[in-house]
Amino acid sequence: MSLVVVGSIAFDAIKTPFGERKRALGGAAVHFALAASYFGDVRMVGPVGDDFGDEEYAVLHSRGINTDDVEHVEGGKTFFYACEYEWNLNVRHSLDTQLNVFGDFQPKLSEASKNSELLFLANIQPDLQREVREQCKGARLAALDSMNFWIESARESLVKTIGSVDILFMNDEEVRMLTEQPTLMGGAKALMEMGPRVIVAKQGEYGAALFTEQGFFALPAYPLESVIDPTGAGDSFAGGFLGYLDSEGGTIDDATLRRAMTYGCATASFWVEEFGCERVATLTREEIDERYQDFLHMTSIEGIRAG
Amino acid sequence: MSLVVVGSIAFDAIKTPFGERKRALGGAAVHFALAASYFGDVRMVGPVGDDFGDEEYAVLHSRGINTDDVEHVEGGKTFFYACEYEWNLNVRHSLDTQLNVFGDFQPKLSEASKNSELLFLANIQPDLQREVREQCKGARLAALDSMNFWIESARESLVKTIGSVDILFMNDEEVRMLTEQPTLMGGAKALMEMGPRVIVAKQGEYGAALFTEQGFFALPAYPLESVIDPTGAGDSFAGGFLGYLDSEGGTIDDATLRRAMTYGCATASFWVEEFGCERVATLTREEIDERYQDFLHMTSIEGIRAG
Repeated sequence: MSLVVVGSIAFDAIKTPFGERKRALGGAAVHFALAASYFGDVRMVGPVGDDFGDEEYAVLHSRGINTDDVEHVEGGKTFFYACEYEWNLNVRHSLDTQLNVFGDFQPKLSEASKNSELLFLANIQPDLQREVREQCKGARLAALDSMNFWIESARESLVKTIGSVDILFMNDEEVRMLTEQPTLMGGAKALMEMGPRVIVAKQGEYGAALFTEQGFFALPAYPLESVIDPTGAGDSFAGGFLGYLDSEGGTIDDATLRRAMTYGCATASFWVEEFGCERVATLTREEIDERYQDFLHMTSIEGIRAG
Repeated sequence: MSLVVVGSIAFDAIKTPFGERKRALGGAAVHFALAASYFGDVRMVGPVGDDFGDEEYAVLHSRGINTDDVEHVEGGKTFFYACEYEWNLNVRHSLDTQLNVFGDFQPKLSEASKNSELLFLANIQPDLQREVREQCKGARLAALDSMNFWIESARESLVKTIGSVDILFMNDEEVRMLTEQPTLMGGAKALMEMGPRVIVAKQGEYGAALFTEQGFFALPAYPLESVIDPTGAGDSFAGGFLGYLDSEGGTIDDATLRRAMTYGCATASFWVEEFGCERVATLTREEIDERYQDFLHMTSIEGIRAG
C-alpha cells in the first residue's frame, strides 16, 4: 500500500524535569512519519520556513521519508511551539505558540500523495482536513486526529470531518468533551454514529483503547521506569498503528487492528525515552518487534506458565 | 483457606449525576467482604453504632459473611460519609465525614479471625493496621490498602506498615505521591523495596496494573456504557482479587495473580452499575465468570480469529 500524512512540521522548545531542548525537530507529521517509516514507505505533507534546512531533512531522509510535498515557504519561519512538563508528566503547560507558515497552510498534494491508499490527517483545522480528504480520491482508508482546541472552536466542522474518515484517533478526555458522554464506551458509540468504523482512544500513560463494531480491546502503555519527554507519543502511536495497517494492505478486521494497536504502543514507548524524536537515531525495527513480543506476554491472562 | 477483612463499615450519602442515596450501606470492609463472598467464606471486623441493624446485617448474611467480629458500640453512631461525583465520575467531592464509632476504633479480633490465613487491612490508620497485622500470627498472607490522607499525615507509620505486608493495593496517583517517583514502574519498584512482593496499582476507569518480581501485567477496566456510582469499586476489586487468591490456596505465583487481577476487575465492574453495593442483590458468580471470559477475549492480541 502507500501512506501519506498531512500535518504540522515544527520546532519545539521542550522542558521536562529531566532536561530541555531549545529547538527540537517536531510537529505531528514529523513524529507520525518517522514512526510509520519502520513499517513501510511514507509521504509527508506540511509547510516549513527558511529555518528548516539540511539537518532536519537529513533526519527525515535517514528513515526514507518522501518529502516531495514538504512545502518551503520563502521568507517564512517554521511553526514553533514551547511547552513545559511538570514532574507529573501528564501535566503540560503551553508556553508559546508561533504558527508562522503553519498559520496560512493550504495543503497542496502531488498526484502521488493524492493517490496514496492510506491517509492520515494529523491535527490541523478541520476544514482543511476535510479538503484534503476530498482531494485524496485514491485513499481507501482515511484516519484523523484532532484536539480540544478544535472541539471548542470548530465543533461543527470537526463533526463533519469525523464523518468523512474511517478511523478516528482522539485522547479519551477529548472523546468525553466532544460527545458529552460520561463513559468512554458511550463516547465511542456516539463517535461511531458520526461515521468512523474504528475509534482509537489514546490514554497517555494508561495506553489506548480500541472500539469497533466487533467490540472492545485495550492495551496498557509499555511500562517504563524512566520517561524523559512525552512529546510526540500520540503521533508516534498513530504512526506505528497506521504504518502497520498499511503494511498489512489496509485490512481493518479486528485481529489486524489489535496488532496495529500493539505496534502503535510499542513504537510510542520508544519515543518517550528521549527528547522529541531523538530516539529515532538509534531505534531499529527489531527493538519494536521485541516490545511487541513483550506485550503478548504482559497482557496474557491465562497464556503464561506459573512462575 | 480463610479470609478476614478489617476496616470501615459505613453509611454513605452519595450523589452522582444519575441519582442519589441518602443512606447507603458502605465502607471498605463491607464492599470488600461482599465482593470476596463470591469466592468463599469471609470474616469482617469493624465497628458499628446503634443505627446499624437487622436490615444491614441481612445484606451481609445473605452473602454468608461472618459478622461475629463486627463490634456494636452501645450509644454510638456508625461512620457516616457524604460525597458528590461530578459528571466526569473520576472527580469526587467529599461533603461530610463523621467518624463516629470509627474514630475510636480499636480492632478486637476473635481467635478465628486472628487465625485466618489471608488478611486484608482495608484503609484505616496505619498504626492500627500494623497492630492487626501483628495480632494475626496465623495469616500466611497480608494485604493492605491505604489513601492519600495517611500518606500526608502518617507517612512514616504507613511505610513501616507497608513493610509488614505481602500485597499492597494503592491508587496509582498515591503511588506517585508516596514514592515521589514520576513513573508508575519506578514507584512500584520503590514500594517493593519497602517490603511487599506484590504491588497492585488501582487506576480507576483505566483498570489496574500488577507489579511483581516476575514482571508487569495490566488490565483495562471492563468497558461499560453506563456507570451509575463508582463508590466501592476499589474495595470490591480487592475483594474479588483476594477472594480468588484465597480460593486458590493463597498461591501468589504470576499466573494466579493475573487471574486474581481479572476476577477483581470483573467483580468491580458490577459494583459501579448500581449505587453503593446494591448490585449485590442480584449479582451471581456466573455473571462474574462471564465477564472473566469477556476479559480473555478483550485483552487478547493474537488469540482471536480475524472477524
